[in-house]
Amino acid sequence: MGDMTNGSPPTTRPTDRPVGRRPGDPATTKATILEAARTRFSEVGFDRATIRSIATSADVDPALVIHHFGGKRQLFVAAHELPFDPAELLADIDTVPSNQRGAHICRLYLSMMVIGGSPAVSLLRTAATNDNAAEMLRQFITSAFISHAPTLAPGPEGERRLALAGAQMMGVVFGREVLKLEPLATATINELVDAIAPTIQRYLDEPLHGDAP
Amino acid sequence: MGDMTNGSPPTTRPTDRPVGRRPGDPATTKATILEAARTRFSEVGFDRATIRSIATSADVDPALVIHHFGGKRQLFVAAHELPFDPAELLADIDTVPSNQRGAHICRLYLSMMVIGGSPAVSLLRTAATNDNAAEMLRQFITSAFISHAPTLAPGPEGERRLALAGAQMMGVVFGREVLKLEPLATATINELVDAIAPTIQRYLDEPLHGDAP
Repeated sequence: MGDMTNGSPPTTRPTDRPVGRRPGDPATTKATILEAARTRFSEVGFDRATIRSIATSADVDPALVIHHFGGKRQLFVAAHELPFDPAELLADIDTVPSNQRGAHICRLYLSMMVIGGSPAVSLLRTAATNDNAAEMLRQFITSAFISHAPTLAPGPEGERRLALAGAQMMGVVFGREVLKLEPLATATINELVDAIAPTIQRYLDEPLHGDAP
Repeated sequence: MGDMTNGSPPTTRPTDRPVGRRPGDPATTKATILEAARTRFSEVGFDRATIRSIATSADVDPALVIHHFGGKRQLFVAAHELPFDPAELLADIDTVPSNQRGAHICRLYLSMMVIGGSPAVSLLRTAATNDNAAEMLRQFITSAFISHAPTLAPGPEGERRLALAGAQMMGVVFGREVLKLEPLATATINELVDAIAPTIQRYLDEPLHGDAP
């Protein structure tokens, strides 16, 4: 305060912030970006929303968005308060023995939806009654899960296998968290993983059609 | 018109309708009952709604409700435009060989939800964002499906088995009809039954826990 001796209004000190970048503390900037991302994703879906358009709408440089969040999928994850990026955790699936991948994926998904709590489930809820939200969630699931078919379930029906696995997990979360259907609602995550993992494993690598190998 | 000679307002002809029953044609009466049923079910849920309270609200005799619809579950089915009563079709499950019951149940459910079209799916949509609707649907699923555990999946974990089977089928319908997730969205009912039936069969009569018999 001792420096302000000439009666002029207080000014901010010059900083080494690059020209063109929005001033303000990082927390505010991140919140602005997240708000812009939520709006943009819900308006045009996951696929068509670009980092550039979100940056423009938040009035920041695209490089700042990448600096804070990484890529578009991570930005989606942060904007919707998911506890982690499922695709990131699937990236090291080849370190998991193939006969344990059903349980691994199952635990990953239930952790995201149930332990993560209502933000993840609210994506399901909103998608149920809003076509834009449904499109956005469909595109995110496709990007973060179904697109991993070549690794997780190689073969001509890989995408169908993952979609069926996803449907089983999503149905359990819908029954447990939305409908509160017993005995799913009071089952522990471990109990659910235990019961569902063999189903997911079957979709990954067992014959998909009744009798045919 | 030739009878109306004295200037008094036209009157309805006396009928042989029993005293106390609401006059009007049966179609109007049924529509009134269905509207009262929808309101009552959504207000107090499936379990607490009674034929008597619905009849009172429709201003008809309870016997007339039973005459037109049978029982409460059938009234729920009619009020929500489901194509059939799932519990009624499950009643003759013992005529289906036990190793084909997974496929049978699967086809039954997908027919109700997908061929039946949007009325059945709209029960899922509404439940996703409205707690009363979720409670109503939970109670109906429990009454029409989970309560059949002693017949369909005898044993101490019968209800869990049916809830897991229900979650698989519900998840497929949610993914297909709500999210339009590919390749579920363009799969035929036969393809879906083919892929899901072994899962449902497993929940009915195979070991539920990974390794233990």
